[in-house]
Amino acid sequence: MVETQSYRFQTKGDGEMVDLTPEMKMAISRSSISSGIVTAFVPGSTGGITTVEYEPGLLKDVPELMEKLVPRDQTYAHDETWHDGNGFSHLRAALIGPDITVPFTNNRMMLGTWQQVVFLDFDNRPREREVIFQIMGE
Amino acid sequence: MVETQSYRFQTKGDGEMVDLTPEMKMAISRSSISSGIVTAFVPGSTGGITTVEYEPGLLKDVPELMEKLVPRDQTYAHDETWHDGNGFSHLRAALIGPDITVPFTNNRMMLGTWQQVVFLDFDNRPREREVIFQIMGE
Amino acid sequence: MVETQSYRFQTKGDGEMVDLTPEMKMAISRSSISSGIVTAFVPGSTGGITTVEYEPGLLKDVPELMEKLVPRDQTYAHDETWHDGNGFSHLRAALIGPDITVPFTNNRMMLGTWQQVVFLDFDNRPREREVIFQIMGE
Repeated sequence: MVETQSYRFQTKGDGEMVDLTPEMKMAISRSSISSGIVTAFVPGSTGGITTVEYEPGLLKDVPELMEKLVPRDQTYAHDETWHDGNGFSHLRAALIGPDITVPFTNNRMMLGTWQQVVFLDFDNRPREREVIFQIMGE
Repeated sequence: MVETQSYRFQTKGDGEMVDLTPEMKMAISRSSISSGIVTAFVPGSTGGITTVEYEPGLLKDVPELMEKLVPRDQTYAHDETWHDGNGFSHLRAALIGPDITVPFTNNRMMLGTWQQVVFLDFDNRPREREVIFQIMGE
Repeated sequence: MVETQSYRFQTKGDGEMVDLTPEMKMAISRSSISSGIVTAFVPGSTGGITTVEYEPGLLKDVPELMEKLVPRDQTYAHDETWHDGNGFSHLRAALIGPDITVPFTNNRMMLGTWQQVVFLDFDNRPREREVIFQIMGE
């Protein structure tokens, strides 16, 4: 069985981390599937999905790490093509990746106690975002 | 239902990015599955799969980022084992990862408009490559 | 069909790489599913899963790369919250990601000859770990 759900939300951009876990839990509850996998996927090339402990310290640390690994104020060839100044956003998104797949049983995702699924908005401006939850199982 | 397809192609190595999207679309069209997920996976430890906007600027930026994060001309212990000089290739591949899972409905992958699935060949020589498309759904 | 298995093991922490491949093969053998995908997932926010050639050189190179990208002896905001000194572990785990999805057919994972699925323990102390193998297919 396959069920497709999605979550729309507003972001501020600039590395904002959004906790997707409550919406993913609800998506699984609403579905008729009790065991399987849920794939969270962002249709877009300037956002990423991973897991992290969603606490105030890491809300600062993760964007700082991304700034260190892929600095914003560097010249990227992408910006010479499009002049939208978000070459760094694309590179950060390619590094983190747009997808995650989480197993669940008895309607519960098998996450650790301090582990949340997060969306990272790497774009350089506020965005209306959509994340797909593809639920597969039985 | 499960359907396995694969795509074989030639690369030049050295960070070349190959757009897998057209082949993945065809794989889904050829299959009898209309909704589900497709996992693209490279059987090999010197290639990676992610998504990116496939445009000329990022075709330069992504390899340059990988060179900055994991420089080629550094001494890696791997090279002392095998003397094939591609320690950096293995490290880049481990960082990006060999897999991606993309949801689809009505035979269409739910990618963003400017988002392509790409294979990154991190090896230091041309390669004959194969990528597996495992299609699951109903 | 869905089958859930898991693997418990002891680590030393500090970047230790554990080869999950033999246990994943056994999990698939034990299951009644012959073709599909297996998702390996770590419930926890200080470990990562990827693929790499499991050989002595890369067992040194991968931890060294992680130390270069996300140094241990830097001040992270996470450590000011929890004072457990493992901010770097969380950041490394978010970068590598907690999941991987591998296709299999005829009970065999479609890995490359020199490609192993590995768990990376980024925590700063020995841990009792569990990795989930969610097997889906027919």
